[in-house]
Amino acid sequence: MTTNIQHLISQMTLEEKAGLCSGLDFWHTKGIERLGIPSLMVTDGPHGLRKQQSSADHLGLHDSVPATCFPSAAGLASSWDRELIGRVGQALGAECQAENVAVLLGPGNNIKRSPLNGRNFEYFSEDPFLASEMAASHVAGVQSQGVGTSLKHFAANNQEHRRMSVDAVIDERTLREIYLASFEGTVKQSQPWSVMCSYNQVNGEYASESETLLTKVLRDEWGFEGFVVSDWGAVNERVKALQAGLELEMPSSGGIGDAKIVNAVNSGELSMETLDKAVERLLGFILKSVEGRRKDAAFDAEEHHALAREVARESMVLLKNADGMLPLAKSGTIAIIGEFAKKPRYQGGGSSHVNPTKLDDAFAEMQAVGGDAVSFLYAQGYELASDEINERMLQEARDTAAKADTAVLFLGLPDRYESEGYDRTHLSLPASHKALIEAVAEVQSNVIVVLSNGSPVEMPWLPQTKAVLEGYLGGQAFGGAVADLLFGAVSPSGKLAETFPQKLSDNPSFLNFPGEGDKVEYKEGLFVGYRYYDKKEIEPLFPFGFGLSYTEFEYSDLLLDKSSIEDTDTVQVTVNVKNTGSRPGKDTVQLYVSDVESSVIRPLRELKGFAKIELQPGEAREVSFTLNKRSFAYYNVQLGDWHVESGVFNILVGASSRDIRLTAPLEVKSTVRLAANFHRNTTVGDLLANPLTADKAKHYSSIFGLESAMEDNPEMFLAMMKYMPLRALIGFGQGRYTEENLAEDLRELNALAGQE
Amino acid sequence: MTTNIQHLISQMTLEEKAGLCSGLDFWHTKGIERLGIPSLMVTDGPHGLRKQQSSADHLGLHDSVPATCFPSAAGLASSWDRELIGRVGQALGAECQAENVAVLLGPGNNIKRSPLNGRNFEYFSEDPFLASEMAASHVAGVQSQGVGTSLKHFAANNQEHRRMSVDAVIDERTLREIYLASFEGTVKQSQPWSVMCSYNQVNGEYASESETLLTKVLRDEWGFEGFVVSDWGAVNERVKALQAGLELEMPSSGGIGDAKIVNAVNSGELSMETLDKAVERLLGFILKSVEGRRKDAAFDAEEHHALAREVARESMVLLKNADGMLPLAKSGTIAIIGEFAKKPRYQGGGSSHVNPTKLDDAFAEMQAVGGDAVSFLYAQGYELASDEINERMLQEARDTAAKADTAVLFLGLPDRYESEGYDRTHLSLPASHKALIEAVAEVQSNVIVVLSNGSPVEMPWLPQTKAVLEGYLGGQAFGGAVADLLFGAVSPSGKLAETFPQKLSDNPSFLNFPGEGDKVEYKEGLFVGYRYYDKKEIEPLFPFGFGLSYTEFEYSDLLLDKSSIEDTDTVQVTVNVKNTGSRPGKDTVQLYVSDVESSVIRPLRELKGFAKIELQPGEAREVSFTLNKRSFAYYNVQLGDWHVESGVFNILVGASSRDIRLTAPLEVKSTVRLAANFHRNTTVGDLLANPLTADKAKHYSSIFGLESAMEDNPEMFLAMMKYMPLRALIGFGQGRYTEENLAEDLRELNALAGQE
Repeated sequence: MTTNIQHLISQMTLEEKAGLCSGLDFWHTKGIERLGIPSLMVTDGPHGLRKQQSSADHLGLHDSVPATCFPSAAGLASSWDRELIGRVGQALGAECQAENVAVLLGPGNNIKRSPLNGRNFEYFSEDPFLASEMAASHVAGVQSQGVGTSLKHFAANNQEHRRMSVDAVIDERTLREIYLASFEGTVKQSQPWSVMCSYNQVNGEYASESETLLTKVLRDEWGFEGFVVSDWGAVNERVKALQAGLELEMPSSGGIGDAKIVNAVNSGELSMETLDKAVERLLGFILKSVEGRRKDAAFDAEEHHALAREVARESMVLLKNADGMLPLAKSGTIAIIGEFAKKPRYQGGGSSHVNPTKLDDAFAEMQAVGGDAVSFLYAQGYELASDEINERMLQEARDTAAKADTAVLFLGLPDRYESEGYDRTHLSLPASHKALIEAVAEVQSNVIVVLSNGSPVEMPWLPQTKAVLEGYLGGQAFGGAVADLLFGAVSPSGKLAETFPQKLSDNPSFLNFPGEGDKVEYKEGLFVGYRYYDKKEIEPLFPFGFGLSYTEFEYSDLLLDKSSIEDTDTVQVTVNVKNTGSRPGKDTVQLYVSDVESSVIRPLRELKGFAKIELQPGEAREVSFTLNKRSFAYYNVQLGDWHVESGVFNILVGASSRDIRLTAPLEVKSTVRLAANFHRNTTVGDLLANPLTADKAKHYSSIFGLESAMEDNPEMFLAMMKYMPLRALIGFGQGRYTEENLAEDLRELNALAGQE
Repeated sequence: MTTNIQHLISQMTLEEKAGLCSGLDFWHTKGIERLGIPSLMVTDGPHGLRKQQSSADHLGLHDSVPATCFPSAAGLASSWDRELIGRVGQALGAECQAENVAVLLGPGNNIKRSPLNGRNFEYFSEDPFLASEMAASHVAGVQSQGVGTSLKHFAANNQEHRRMSVDAVIDERTLREIYLASFEGTVKQSQPWSVMCSYNQVNGEYASESETLLTKVLRDEWGFEGFVVSDWGAVNERVKALQAGLELEMPSSGGIGDAKIVNAVNSGELSMETLDKAVERLLGFILKSVEGRRKDAAFDAEEHHALAREVARESMVLLKNADGMLPLAKSGTIAIIGEFAKKPRYQGGGSSHVNPTKLDDAFAEMQAVGGDAVSFLYAQGYELASDEINERMLQEARDTAAKADTAVLFLGLPDRYESEGYDRTHLSLPASHKALIEAVAEVQSNVIVVLSNGSPVEMPWLPQTKAVLEGYLGGQAFGGAVADLLFGAVSPSGKLAETFPQKLSDNPSFLNFPGEGDKVEYKEGLFVGYRYYDKKEIEPLFPFGFGLSYTEFEYSDLLLDKSSIEDTDTVQVTVNVKNTGSRPGKDTVQLYVSDVESSVIRPLRELKGFAKIELQPGEAREVSFTLNKRSFAYYNVQLGDWHVESGVFNILVGASSRDIRLTAPLEVKSTVRLAANFHRNTTVGDLLANPLTADKAKHYSSIFGLESAMEDNPEMFLAMMKYMPLRALIGFGQGRYTEENLAEDLRELNALAGQE
């Protein structure tokens, strides 16, 4: 294959090479007929195919061919189910084959820094481990069908506000541990055919022009083998981007980008080797796509719809269920209230917008699943097109609810609230939806709320409800899935992949979102999502990893196969999970790691493992996790690598980030010694704390004649010695210590620390 | 005088010049006998003179001559009384004269970033405006006596942890608006004779070696005319420090520093001009001191003690007073409980530790003020030397409290909890003190707590009390002042100069205090103290500016003399304050400014004025404030200056930061236009928002043929256009816009914005 590619390259003109590095139009790469290189189609996704008709507009916002609309990533991640997401990927890949699409542009794997991000519904999680696992399954699923993915938006595209110009200023450790980590795990596990660079700048450099991101980190460190494509319009300076590692500019630049490349090669600014390398990667993709192409591909829309329904069920999170309100009995009178019950909000706006093959109506599905023994009533409750409170509709809702045993309210965020292109400015439901809850609660004590939204909302109305089901953007089978869950056909099993805050100002990015002018500083650093709420002791509305079930699970017998490891070893963790309730159900067991003591600032605990299992009533099963160096490491910027600080770590197993049930300690010993570099401002305390230098440092306190000071304020004297830099001994020593003593001591101390 | 100094310099040898730049010993500058230049004494303070006996230790921690111990700065600032603090300064200056001290080393004016800072008791406030006003009065008072001050610790010395090596990493705007601002106001108003540079590094540079801090900001920008002295041992590299603007190294370097200066001049590394300038400043100080010297000075210790009592009364803050518990009636039985009632904690540890001229015993003072009609009981309650709960003492306290009508508990932080040299690690009272509240509350419902502490404590026990008086570190007359307040001889009038948080983790610096290794990042930025609690909507335990009185005040008639000003104008604000209660009392009226809309991140409101007034029952008075450009400005880093963004500001007048009673709008117009610099990544939205370029920018949306997209998702389309950088029009325009168009447009747009 490589030979073949090299042969092709050798036959290409400079203009053909340059031409291959940008699109033919909005959705196609260029072909070169005389060499048999085909033009391929790439299209939006990623939770459904969005293949535009050729007559479409230039921004790619217009209607597309019918395709199955699965829940968007926010919901997918709430399933915590790798296998299930793999099957979604396979279905998506099959639909791409049927439509002759070479690459599905997704999944999106940016971290949910703020719940305001208008595009959060397309992203998986606030946690990079969960996000990378979910995206890896998605990518592997799609690519198993001979169709490529484009993992996006690389990197730090965590807001829509000024997304094409904003500079995300992020310290390197945070970038590595949070914002790059979600991509890293996916790339390493599943090798997406392509990665899409983001619009924004990262630390002063356009992502599209960042050699650090696109080459050093992505390829040299992570081993990415595919090509990089620009987000549509993300190329700033074409030649700089190519040099940084961006092979494909999209959409077509109308020949402008190609000409710039040609000129740069001719002027010597760009080497032919760099261009050839880019062409080699693009041809590699094209040949792989041609090889994987299944010309007779087709898919069964009904089968995919059934999968969409299964996935939606697994994605929804039961947030509240007071008095065993759910599941609903299949009898009595149920008032279904809210226009979303008939006109579902099931996906977000923008490039991921799918034209569904069919679309469930929740009201009809409730009737179908609930059966004839239930009387169903309906009231519209609010107008979708406006936030204004409609008093007539409220009264109608009251009247309807009063006649029923239970009221199920379909509420959430209308389309205009959440979309690619802009962020939200608050976390509130529309005033008309909030008023509806108040109105219904006046006459009905059994209020169940089903939410359609892509990202958290505040719930000041929570006390007025008995049950809340977070439906996220559930895809085309949203209605059927809700009916299945509400009537208990299956037990809810979704758990939150993000924290729901009590109020917007609780969010860690609140003070610095969306930034000032074209600069957004990530001053909360590592403390994103539950890492912040936990450390700051802020009670969330619902914590990361939280979700209720109709049954109960008990955890026991947390066992580690070793009590102490070196950081090059792995450790096996097992725990016994039992369904102690009376219904079958699924549970996601979560494993967090907590560093007991650290010289660097660390979160209280971080997710390092999870497993979703299904158990029949009374059934128990052992769940197993493997932890490795990365499970304990932080990114050490000086070292330029992940590093484990020797010491004890606690292994925490629980049902959510705030519901830790079992804990076991593990000692981890580093095999890497950080280089010592003692200097004139090294403190006496640091030398005393280092076993290699403690002996030598002991005599420093005797340089002072400080018996009286010790008597007056011993705590202060000891602290002063501890924090005293060596060079200060010269002044305070009043002749008992000289610059020459210091120079000699530093030689000796550095030699001591250099010893094994 | 200048001539005289120049003449002196011309007679000095290089060695004499170098010698003048460091101390003779721990507390004296060097004299040059042959030129009649005397050796002068500088000593610690600043809330009392700490002149050491000559036999003292080298760290300067040992006993000192008797001097009046006033409340430390944390308490002084709670008085919010400029005049009173001026009188304290005068008294301190008089004591310095009596002891032949040339400079009192203080006041400390670092901002209270974290309540954990072990030295917070020596600092005024979390707010730079309040801090600068307080310190300015202190400095003016001392210096009115012909004695110098040394404003310290410049700059960003906001923790004791690793204070000699830590690097405080602070963005420039935060540095200017918060951490330098407290020094700036004091320097500009009161010209301290000296400024003391801090131990720590600021943004990678030792404060002692920062030409930016010591010369550019302090002298060139603020007009400081005095000399800079090192904190004791803060000099890292002597020559670099001299070049940066540090004239006096303290304590003596044993000749090492002098030799380095001599060598540097001889080698040409240091110019003689630089050294002469330093010597000129030091001689200026010496001559000023000699001129101001009053050889027959003495002071009346009793008079100063009475002043200390007055000041302590004004400094204490009544935090809670349920059921009108206070003032106490002068009858019945009062149980005084807690060893602090007989062994007061009235000052902090470290260099500010004073040997008082006399020391009140609160128990005795309560008896004296309460009079014979009150029966006083006493129980020790806890052991000062230990945190351990003493069950016998608890039982004794219970028994004692049960016999009384009221229990007054003297609690707080023992000496070892707070000192120069190290920070606290939690905000809790000792376990023995907390247990005492619990024990007494079991048998007595009238529990009054009097606190002795230099910085906030958590109060989980607050519900068990009826009243809480925050006594801070009240100086040697602490006991008398408490008695005066509890029995109502005067009404409490102190207000908090810092926020009391519910819990430590609420503090803005919590995630990044005290930093990692030798680096502490001020990631909370501007959001220090109430600026954070307000914006993050975190309910404090007690807010900034809060304090109760025995009487009531009403605010009315908020008037501005103009409704609109230019930023070069001032505006006069008046408000009517009336004592509507039945007792005489003092109130501090606070004025905050709030920017209604801003393109930069700003706090919700900032203190820009305050006035303390005394009113008899029924009396009313008009209070007046003058606001100027600085009251509305933020520090614009690009401009390198303070800048007002044109628009409406709200003028808020209230009794605390969370008790705003009156609001009035004011329009402020900037007289400075920020330079426009449009470039290829300027967004269409920015051009549309600028009145100078809006017309020109309107046609950009027509470059696309986007009617259909507008129909699909108009919000997204409009957002895309708004955030679209000009250069992206080239790609998306598909030939309708070229690089040449862009270049031409940029020329035109920049020309348009350059017009007046």
